[in-house]
Amino acid sequence: MIEPRTLKGFRDHLPAQALARERLLDIARRVYRSYGFAPIDTPALEYLEILVGKGSEETDRQLYRFRDHGGRDVGLRFDLTVPFARFAAQHVHELGLPFKRYHMAPVWRGENTQRGRYREFVQCDFDTIGTTSPVADLEMVLVVHDLFVAIGIERFTIRLNDRRVLTGILTRLGLAARGPHVLRSLDKLAKVGAESVAAELAAQGVGADAAATLLEMASLTGPPATVLAALERLVGETEIGRTGVAALRVLVERAEQGGVGGGRLAVDPSIARGLDYYTGLVLETFLDDLPTLGSVCSGGRYDDLAGLYTKQPLPGIGASLGLDRLLAGLEELGCLDARETPADVFLPYFDERHLVDYLRIAAALRAGGVAVELYPEPRKLGQQLKLAAKRGFPTALVIGSDELAAGTAQWKDLHAQTSTMIDWHGDLAVLVDAVRSGLSARH
Amino acid sequence: MIEPRTLKGFRDHLPAQALARERLLDIARRVYRSYGFAPIDTPALEYLEILVGKGSEETDRQLYRFRDHGGRDVGLRFDLTVPFARFAAQHVHELGLPFKRYHMAPVWRGENTQRGRYREFVQCDFDTIGTTSPVADLEMVLVVHDLFVAIGIERFTIRLNDRRVLTGILTRLGLAARGPHVLRSLDKLAKVGAESVAAELAAQGVGADAAATLLEMASLTGPPATVLAALERLVGETEIGRTGVAALRVLVERAEQGGVGGGRLAVDPSIARGLDYYTGLVLETFLDDLPTLGSVCSGGRYDDLAGLYTKQPLPGIGASLGLDRLLAGLEELGCLDARETPADVFLPYFDERHLVDYLRIAAALRAGGVAVELYPEPRKLGQQLKLAAKRGFPTALVIGSDELAAGTAQWKDLHAQTSTMIDWHGDLAVLVDAVRSGLSARH
Repeated sequence: MIEPRTLKGFRDHLPAQALARERLLDIARRVYRSYGFAPIDTPALEYLEILVGKGSEETDRQLYRFRDHGGRDVGLRFDLTVPFARFAAQHVHELGLPFKRYHMAPVWRGENTQRGRYREFVQCDFDTIGTTSPVADLEMVLVVHDLFVAIGIERFTIRLNDRRVLTGILTRLGLAARGPHVLRSLDKLAKVGAESVAAELAAQGVGADAAATLLEMASLTGPPATVLAALERLVGETEIGRTGVAALRVLVERAEQGGVGGGRLAVDPSIARGLDYYTGLVLETFLDDLPTLGSVCSGGRYDDLAGLYTKQPLPGIGASLGLDRLLAGLEELGCLDARETPADVFLPYFDERHLVDYLRIAAALRAGGVAVELYPEPRKLGQQLKLAAKRGFPTALVIGSDELAAGTAQWKDLHAQTSTMIDWHGDLAVLVDAVRSGLSARH
Repeated sequence: MIEPRTLKGFRDHLPAQALARERLLDIARRVYRSYGFAPIDTPALEYLEILVGKGSEETDRQLYRFRDHGGRDVGLRFDLTVPFARFAAQHVHELGLPFKRYHMAPVWRGENTQRGRYREFVQCDFDTIGTTSPVADLEMVLVVHDLFVAIGIERFTIRLNDRRVLTGILTRLGLAARGPHVLRSLDKLAKVGAESVAAELAAQGVGADAAATLLEMASLTGPPATVLAALERLVGETEIGRTGVAALRVLVERAEQGGVGGGRLAVDPSIARGLDYYTGLVLETFLDDLPTLGSVCSGGRYDDLAGLYTKQPLPGIGASLGLDRLLAGLEELGCLDARETPADVFLPYFDERHLVDYLRIAAALRAGGVAVELYPEPRKLGQQLKLAAKRGFPTALVIGSDELAAGTAQWKDLHAQTSTMIDWHGDLAVLVDAVRSGLSARH
């Protein structure tokens, strides 16, 4: 006997979890499509040279890599951005620009396994490439907003910053060349606190006054207008800084005109995003009720997606929904459905003589758009209903000999534990209508 | 510069192809769910011991295997059945029986690359385990039928056989012990012809009369009733053979009662399915207009899914839709849409002063369920419409300063190259209604 087990850091998805994930994927797909983003797919395996040195030292170390049958060095993708860069460089002439794509697929990282960290997880990326227009920036914010609203999350905040604001402040402080290091230190603020960051900055040779300014910047809070006014002061006369503040101001104004209200938008100068390639807007999204979960949807603007593969500049903007992190958050908030079945109706099969009737009833319901599971064996009703209740079926349609003879059915609400009689006079169309309207009344 | 390329045997999916694949996945999901099959997911990587020796020598040879960071021998799954066996053994007590699952996911095989063969492809499996009821067999046939009808394929044939029929005939011929070898020879009939198979059987020591009987069996054609009558004669008095013929007869009768008509069901004794684990019904599905494509949906009944991982017997029945093979077939038949966008409406942005209006119009259309792409830059109208036509947008909604002032819009049908005026009096609700009814009239 072989012990049935999954690899460390990997996991199975049982139906309740898989249904919740399919629901989120479906919503993300619908929202991305509603803005004209088109799906693409790329292979799970790429040439190793495509993948190494593209993320960070950490992603290189975590890469699942091996030599294939043909002696090629290959690796499993660790994100969807690097394959997209390769894809865009390879196909840009077929695709045309600007090009908007989404890609929802698993990625693999051999990380140390901590709470909620898995070595296989699904990302849902969307990007617009081939344009520097602020309309694409705005659209990213609107997509993220629509996405969380469509999922049914009321309390979330999209936190915005612009790399150019930080560059402006660093320029004013004479620290422009140290940008990446300062960025990485500031990025830890929420995790390690102001004192640690100040010590780290001092160790980098950043003067006390400059460090205080940077920490003041990263600690700004309040309504967007207040934060923007403070930033305007901090960037001084630097052109790049003023451009960044102006871009944020226009973006916030237009997003609010576009329906993003209710304090769901914040300008947060502490959002740095550790990745070097961001050059403009950066964005993170937090669930207000679970701030410690971290960002569940992050992204930003970059000047050049695929400089390693093509000379054609491909500026763009994109973000990634961390599907599995969001699912973990929704579970922690008790927002996940415990249903283990996609079907709305359970049809017990307890009288062998009437199988053909059950088949006809099930077929009619399906033709009417109702998902129905027919139990496959003529077992005792109680036993069948117990399984149906355990699986979370909302309703069961009980039809025995007596009901068939009378043209009726007992429709049981398995949650409320109530029962209604449907009088369908043996007319399947009447039965289907009754079930459909009963189900829509439940929703 | 790194050359942007995919690995040999792997490929990217550009939007038109990815949209077609998402459409099929969506249909399969809907049909599987309509019968109460629930989704599951398993990791792409498994312990090597879970995967090796479970398929055939061929799958062992083609396995992508390596040693991971923790020194574990691992492999990429080569199908969805072996992981499901491991999954079922591991979780059967949580799942309850009978259990119906679907799983749609990529699998990897380091095959020699031939026309239409890829090293990464998507399978869409559905299985019912924990029951030996013929209702589950019938349901498999109904699911396959509903699936192809929902995809929009009119001309397809589901070919059925029952392993017990063959076992009966072999028993009568005194060849019961040679079952697996005879099976594999007969399985090649369509590929290599009767003479080759006869020679192979002779080489196995099968007598000329017995070989003639087996070839007669495998060559039977005609309406199900005719083939079943001939099989009844061939199985003689063997109990297992008579059971198999009776099961096929009941199945065909019930499937026809269940709405599978139009000659879409055939009893085809040449269907053997090379895999040893099938014990009852076996099924293959062919597109009538592309018989050489091979089966696009195959499956059968097995006595024990997970005997290697658990002592609990898990009988069941299942089938797998070969998504990528079906897509190749639909492409060959010219049945695939060339659209590269999921959006129905293209909204040109050609007057910078009206960006806010465009944003409001796009938001209203999306809120009304219409997917709309707003071009991100104020470019010349002709240039924008050219891109829209290339991408296959069905319609474009052209609204310039004059139209905005008049409360009108030009709605262009980009396929028919016609234009209609919509008079919306500046009332977004009127515009959305006009676009929605226009779009549904097009479908």
